[in-house]
Amino acid sequence: MGKSINEIINENRDLYKQWLIDFCAVPSVAAQNRGMEESKKFLQHLFDTYIKEEVEFIETSGYPVAYSHIKSDSPYTISFYNHYDVQPEDPIELWNSPPFEATEKDGKIYARGIADNKGNLIARLAAVHALKQQNPYLPLNVKFIFEGEEEIGSIHLSEFAENHTDKIQSDGNVWEFGYRDVDGRLQVSLGVKGMLYVELSAEGANTDLHSANASIIESPAWRLLFALTSLKDQNDKVLIPGFYDDVIEPTDEEIEFLSQYLFDEEANKEHLGISQFVNNLTGLSLKKKHLFEPTCNICGINSGYTGEGSKTVLPNHAFAKLDFRLVPGQDSERILKLLREHLDNQGFQDIKIKEMSGVQAARTHPTETIVEAVIETVTESEEMSPNIVPNTPGTGPMYDLCQRFGIPSVSFGVGHYASNNHAPNENIRVQDFYKHIEQVADLIVRFEKKLASKGVVKSCN
Amino acid sequence: MGKSINEIINENRDLYKQWLIDFCAVPSVAAQNRGMEESKKFLQHLFDTYIKEEVEFIETSGYPVAYSHIKSDSPYTISFYNHYDVQPEDPIELWNSPPFEATEKDGKIYARGIADNKGNLIARLAAVHALKQQNPYLPLNVKFIFEGEEEIGSIHLSEFAENHTDKIQSDGNVWEFGYRDVDGRLQVSLGVKGMLYVELSAEGANTDLHSANASIIESPAWRLLFALTSLKDQNDKVLIPGFYDDVIEPTDEEIEFLSQYLFDEEANKEHLGISQFVNNLTGLSLKKKHLFEPTCNICGINSGYTGEGSKTVLPNHAFAKLDFRLVPGQDSERILKLLREHLDNQGFQDIKIKEMSGVQAARTHPTETIVEAVIETVTESEEMSPNIVPNTPGTGPMYDLCQRFGIPSVSFGVGHYASNNHAPNENIRVQDFYKHIEQVADLIVRFEKKLASKGVVKSCN
Repeated sequence: MGKSINEIINENRDLYKQWLIDFCAVPSVAAQNRGMEESKKFLQHLFDTYIKEEVEFIETSGYPVAYSHIKSDSPYTISFYNHYDVQPEDPIELWNSPPFEATEKDGKIYARGIADNKGNLIARLAAVHALKQQNPYLPLNVKFIFEGEEEIGSIHLSEFAENHTDKIQSDGNVWEFGYRDVDGRLQVSLGVKGMLYVELSAEGANTDLHSANASIIESPAWRLLFALTSLKDQNDKVLIPGFYDDVIEPTDEEIEFLSQYLFDEEANKEHLGISQFVNNLTGLSLKKKHLFEPTCNICGINSGYTGEGSKTVLPNHAFAKLDFRLVPGQDSERILKLLREHLDNQGFQDIKIKEMSGVQAARTHPTETIVEAVIETVTESEEMSPNIVPNTPGTGPMYDLCQRFGIPSVSFGVGHYASNNHAPNENIRVQDFYKHIEQVADLIVRFEKKLASKGVVKSCN
Repeated sequence: MGKSINEIINENRDLYKQWLIDFCAVPSVAAQNRGMEESKKFLQHLFDTYIKEEVEFIETSGYPVAYSHIKSDSPYTISFYNHYDVQPEDPIELWNSPPFEATEKDGKIYARGIADNKGNLIARLAAVHALKQQNPYLPLNVKFIFEGEEEIGSIHLSEFAENHTDKIQSDGNVWEFGYRDVDGRLQVSLGVKGMLYVELSAEGANTDLHSANASIIESPAWRLLFALTSLKDQNDKVLIPGFYDDVIEPTDEEIEFLSQYLFDEEANKEHLGISQFVNNLTGLSLKKKHLFEPTCNICGINSGYTGEGSKTVLPNHAFAKLDFRLVPGQDSERILKLLREHLDNQGFQDIKIKEMSGVQAARTHPTETIVEAVIETVTESEEMSPNIVPNTPGTGPMYDLCQRFGIPSVSFGVGHYASNNHAPNENIRVQDFYKHIEQVADLIVRFEKKLASKGVVKSCN
């Protein structure tokens, strides 16, 4: 009798961790066009040397999508969506270790992109590698779809999906990410918020001026601030007319999930060093706002002199980067149109809007086979049921790649509540990384069995 | 018969220009502690080698004040106030030549600090140098007071003046700066606005967060924006209760000066590339707002990600640098107190205020001998009368060094309407530099004669 899959994974722990460390050394910041070619080379090497399967780099109008279809004689297919790009590392001075040198400390590994989402990507490749050590023929077809532009809004993923509907077809998709709650319970999430990302800007005179001129020369910084504070009130309600019109309210079933969903308020507050949440919300209201309500957030704002000491200047340019997290029903293009109309109506015709990206929200129904399989896998592996989240507060191009084409998608992964995604000292726990490898290997086997036992007849490879 | 003073100045043109070029090569940015020691060495060298008079560097709690008292056998004294520090050069990418390499082009010299105010400082030293070539004994005592912290709010000049009342005493002071209007007419100004410079900041969680958290975690960027937009309305009226209470309204005589004061609206608009002034003001209302009304200006604001592309982050820190230009009657400490009270009353107790500097406004009466002497000198030299400004919209520590001790002060200098003080491509016209040398030399002779003819009896050297 051969080795168990977990024995094989255990024997390869150091190898898999090394893959992760090496991948995190690649500064694949798509926003700044850094390390993207190097990422391709790294993935090519991994597939050639270890997975021993073909990987294609499918061109788009932006960075290519890494695609691999590992064939089996099963009629069924599971697909995995991940991305090989990461967020910029700023503010770099707040990192305790170099962002692009994975650093292990106290059971965690710190690196930019390790939680979002190189840890997941590598764990899933490792699961397939381990399964192939056990049996060269996988129980079902496996597709890996790794895009390179998730952190810049997946601007060409929709185009990719439309041009390659054959390649994206599957019976179920595992989405990029997943986290453990404060109590260690794994989250399984069934959807994502959408997003509209814009840059607003204002211009003044043709040069910065001595600030004595502020008495008579219009300030673009003030213009921008007045425009921004017209967008929402101090109770976090967006004031753009029509903004909430198309929101699909959660169903009773979703509210039921929400009430079961664990969110440890005290632990979160303590971890983040805050005394209360927005509007002093607690309980179900807090969870509802977090998961089911849209946002209007300032990701960045800048104007004038921001260095040491004092400089007395009237700056001639000001800009702000905003993301609106959208919920099912809201369309990013319509929100953009409403934003423009609102600014115009408030007298801010001079404020320019640059659309950076738009993504639709998405949700999968909990009775889908892939969802059932993930829940079973996690419950057995963890010896406790997962924390099921109807949708996460985060965003991903799930709709463009899955729901739009009838493919159910579910998300779980290697992160934890303090993984610091998009922030300094991003990290994962080493044990969570190994656990995800085991669970993905189990899921691949389980999903095929469930589809077969249900008698699903589908050929989509 | 000896040479005329203007012949001597003409023979030394290249030397004086070289002093200026060399001084501008010193990046004396006090805000960033750059080039300050080098500035001292440069001034020491200039006094030792060319002026051949003693210069002292008088210690303060900050950068030292360069002080020289060139004695004569006259009972009368004229003093000159200048500063050897300059503004930071940011945004450096908008400069057409290196900010610390003086670059001559089309009759202008471009360099950081050349208009504000190394050009004036050097021109005045050159005038004394030229007078001494003509006669080793100056017609009256001359005092040079060059501070090193003007651009960071003259934070120790008041302390210096209090500790050295003997050194600052004079019968009349010539202040640091001066400009030519669009039509070439020289401005003579009799006062300055005061200033309160503060940094406001807001803090959020103990780390930057993924912006998906914006649904429930308070955003310091939004907090700061709401606090800032509570400070003034869109018509540029400051909303801090009590802000305007102590403003001393201009007298009829001052309004009369103002109505004569030339401000070429069309030329200014064209030069700055703007279509209108604040509130679409014109004529006397525009000039009144510019010279006699206080301001609330954003010098800089920053939060979160401001690089290329899009980063979805909820930043945990936001700050803004503000300057309030104050008019006679307003006290910077009281305005600071009112600002704190206003923020507290508006529910912004969490917004921190850091005071960077506070300066009182100042005005000199036009019948003072030093003012009369400057007007006569300028009228003869220019063959037209100057544009007399009751006070400039800019700020300087004039009150702390002059009016507080009964010393009248008047300002004229080498700049012009497009000198771009505090902004990229700061410049002066070469011919204006030489003209100021001639005028200062003439003023020194004329001021002594006027005091003597008036029979002023004073011994203050």
